[in-house]
Amino acid sequence: MLTISERGIQMPASPIRKLVPFAEAAKKRGTRVYHLNIGQPDIETPPAIVGAVKHADIRVLEYSHSAGNESYRRKLVEYYKKVGIDISHEQIIITTGGSEAILFGFFTCLNPGDEVIIPEPFYANYNGFACTAGVNVVPITSYIENGFALPPIEEFEKVITPKTKGIVVCNPNNPTGYLYSREEMEALKEICIRHNLYLFSDEAYREFCYDGNYISAMHLQGLDEHVVLMDTISKRYSACGARIGAFVTRNKQVYDAAMKFAQARLSPPGLAQIMGEAAVDLPDDYFNEPKAEYQARRDLMISRLNKIPGVFCPNPGGAFYAIARLPIDDSDKFCQWLLESFEYDGQTVMLAPATGFYGTPGLGTNEIRLAYVLNLEALDNAMTVLEKALEVYPGRKG
Amino acid sequence: MLTISERGIQMPASPIRKLVPFAEAAKKRGTRVYHLNIGQPDIETPPAIVGAVKHADIRVLEYSHSAGNESYRRKLVEYYKKVGIDISHEQIIITTGGSEAILFGFFTCLNPGDEVIIPEPFYANYNGFACTAGVNVVPITSYIENGFALPPIEEFEKVITPKTKGIVVCNPNNPTGYLYSREEMEALKEICIRHNLYLFSDEAYREFCYDGNYISAMHLQGLDEHVVLMDTISKRYSACGARIGAFVTRNKQVYDAAMKFAQARLSPPGLAQIMGEAAVDLPDDYFNEPKAEYQARRDLMISRLNKIPGVFCPNPGGAFYAIARLPIDDSDKFCQWLLESFEYDGQTVMLAPATGFYGTPGLGTNEIRLAYVLNLEALDNAMTVLEKALEVYPGRKG
Repeated sequence: MLTISERGIQMPASPIRKLVPFAEAAKKRGTRVYHLNIGQPDIETPPAIVGAVKHADIRVLEYSHSAGNESYRRKLVEYYKKVGIDISHEQIIITTGGSEAILFGFFTCLNPGDEVIIPEPFYANYNGFACTAGVNVVPITSYIENGFALPPIEEFEKVITPKTKGIVVCNPNNPTGYLYSREEMEALKEICIRHNLYLFSDEAYREFCYDGNYISAMHLQGLDEHVVLMDTISKRYSACGARIGAFVTRNKQVYDAAMKFAQARLSPPGLAQIMGEAAVDLPDDYFNEPKAEYQARRDLMISRLNKIPGVFCPNPGGAFYAIARLPIDDSDKFCQWLLESFEYDGQTVMLAPATGFYGTPGLGTNEIRLAYVLNLEALDNAMTVLEKALEVYPGRKG
Repeated sequence: MLTISERGIQMPASPIRKLVPFAEAAKKRGTRVYHLNIGQPDIETPPAIVGAVKHADIRVLEYSHSAGNESYRRKLVEYYKKVGIDISHEQIIITTGGSEAILFGFFTCLNPGDEVIIPEPFYANYNGFACTAGVNVVPITSYIENGFALPPIEEFEKVITPKTKGIVVCNPNNPTGYLYSREEMEALKEICIRHNLYLFSDEAYREFCYDGNYISAMHLQGLDEHVVLMDTISKRYSACGARIGAFVTRNKQVYDAAMKFAQARLSPPGLAQIMGEAAVDLPDDYFNEPKAEYQARRDLMISRLNKIPGVFCPNPGGAFYAIARLPIDDSDKFCQWLLESFEYDGQTVMLAPATGFYGTPGLGTNEIRLAYVLNLEALDNAMTVLEKALEVYPGRKG
């Protein structure tokens, strides 16, 4: 018999997308589903960047340079300068979304069997990319009580082995919304230098910091050889479907090796590179509006969550996610129940069980992730639905 | 010291793109370079499909379904029906170019250390994808004397081991242009069934068959579980930069596992999916013109090549490539020399050394690959340049 690969068996199914059939069934029954389960913002993609594609003069849509169009990479240098990151266009590879940047980082820096440490809860697809690359994810737990702050450095030290080759940090964090402080980033730097580790830094949400300052891994002095920045325009410009990201490093050896993976797949998406390039020319105040909108949503959502009996949700400093603790038996059951068996006034809410974001089995069973990607009115309704649901959920605890 | 991965070291640099700096230098000197080195057609991308993107009403460019937009997959079912392939939209995953379809195939079906047999010369990036997946490529040699026909089945049998899990076939072939016959495809089928192998079928060039009929691996009866079709719109519609391909299989287990890799990277490029969908609605006679154009180019190029003393080039039945044997010492040296040290009337030609397409070291040293992606006049000039170059090349042999 033909068999699929071990990797194909072990590859995790998306913990977010596995509830999709239940959501589809709910919609077929006529229930309105509020999608707080996925980081797909409803913010308009800037018409100017969509327009750049519409007005482009394309006779032949050719392969671009494998690192992406030079004109785009040079533009990105300007963008990064604005956020305090000084790099050259020859330190950037345009990727197919942030996803490919992560894959290039893992493929280039890590051998099968190597370990990367990731504070949990973490972006679930890191598991998929690690599995693809044959890399083992070693989680160290951060806790809801202190808002998912970076675990103490001793916790990192405890799990470091000769196989440990890197740390993955997502700042501001998906799924917790936590914004790492200068001190925390410096602590990561120290440990990377002491143990000779790569720092893979996923900074997809840097524009959305509400309390405190965004510190890029690229801002850290003396860490040039260690840092691999994995970036994307998906959230920045509400252009998730574009699939344009960037792999950025000052480590020439890493860059050159990553370029070989980039060459094998020929080039990143051509039309969307035009969007990305145009985006750098958006007015500097472009982010004010979406940022204010997200902040208002956060304020509403966190406030409403913490008023629901038995619910606790720390106030996230950035991104557009929060993890809340609910008075429930099992977050997977609860999220499925919301879609299968509950409605309030013809509405229900789709959430992501936090279990999918933890590497340690058994954690997150009473936590869910919410993405505040809906407008204030929808979000307010969704909170009412959640409140009503918790009143009647059969698996309610505590 | 930080080290890059073994995979990063072993990953092959693109044998085509490594000559690029020499071509750039030649252009800077004012030399016109005819690019016959890469499969980047000069055929216009159909304005209707670019127009479909320009006229699309996009408020938020959202993630699509991880398998690609359902509307596009349903359209592709129509397309495949026209080429005699009967599949459903739930047997298709839209990929980021054919490249990602190949990667998904290898990741899903093959373990690190497994072997795939590929008739050589073969598309060089299979090496990169195999390296990425930790898979070993086992080449079996096809020969210029019989136009690079499929090697006899005994040659396959000789190299099959317990590690052998699949065969990769590219039909019509890149880099040879060879079009496999019904008998050859049936022979592949027999061996796949006998030895329980996957048949990974890269059919990027199916629209461009000039002599004889195109037989898809999907046309073979009784091979449903074995076939993974890796497809792309890059060449079909001269839309290489779109990065839209397809992974197609009737093997449900393989499909479901591949979907997990697709989910991890969220979705394929959004704008270009609109192009792909519109392309299915192009008039049925759309291909007549580009096909006639390629055929005229092939006829010109092959005829001119075979008139050059010491040159032999079989007549390829499909795609837009040919491999020619030249009276030279070393194809890598020759191709570099063309760019570095030669010009005729202010012009030179960029070719791909065939060495990069062979897995067996030492083969292809007197062969080069030509992509007939330039118009007839440019192609004719390029042939004159090549003829003149061979007259004076210091490493001429025979």
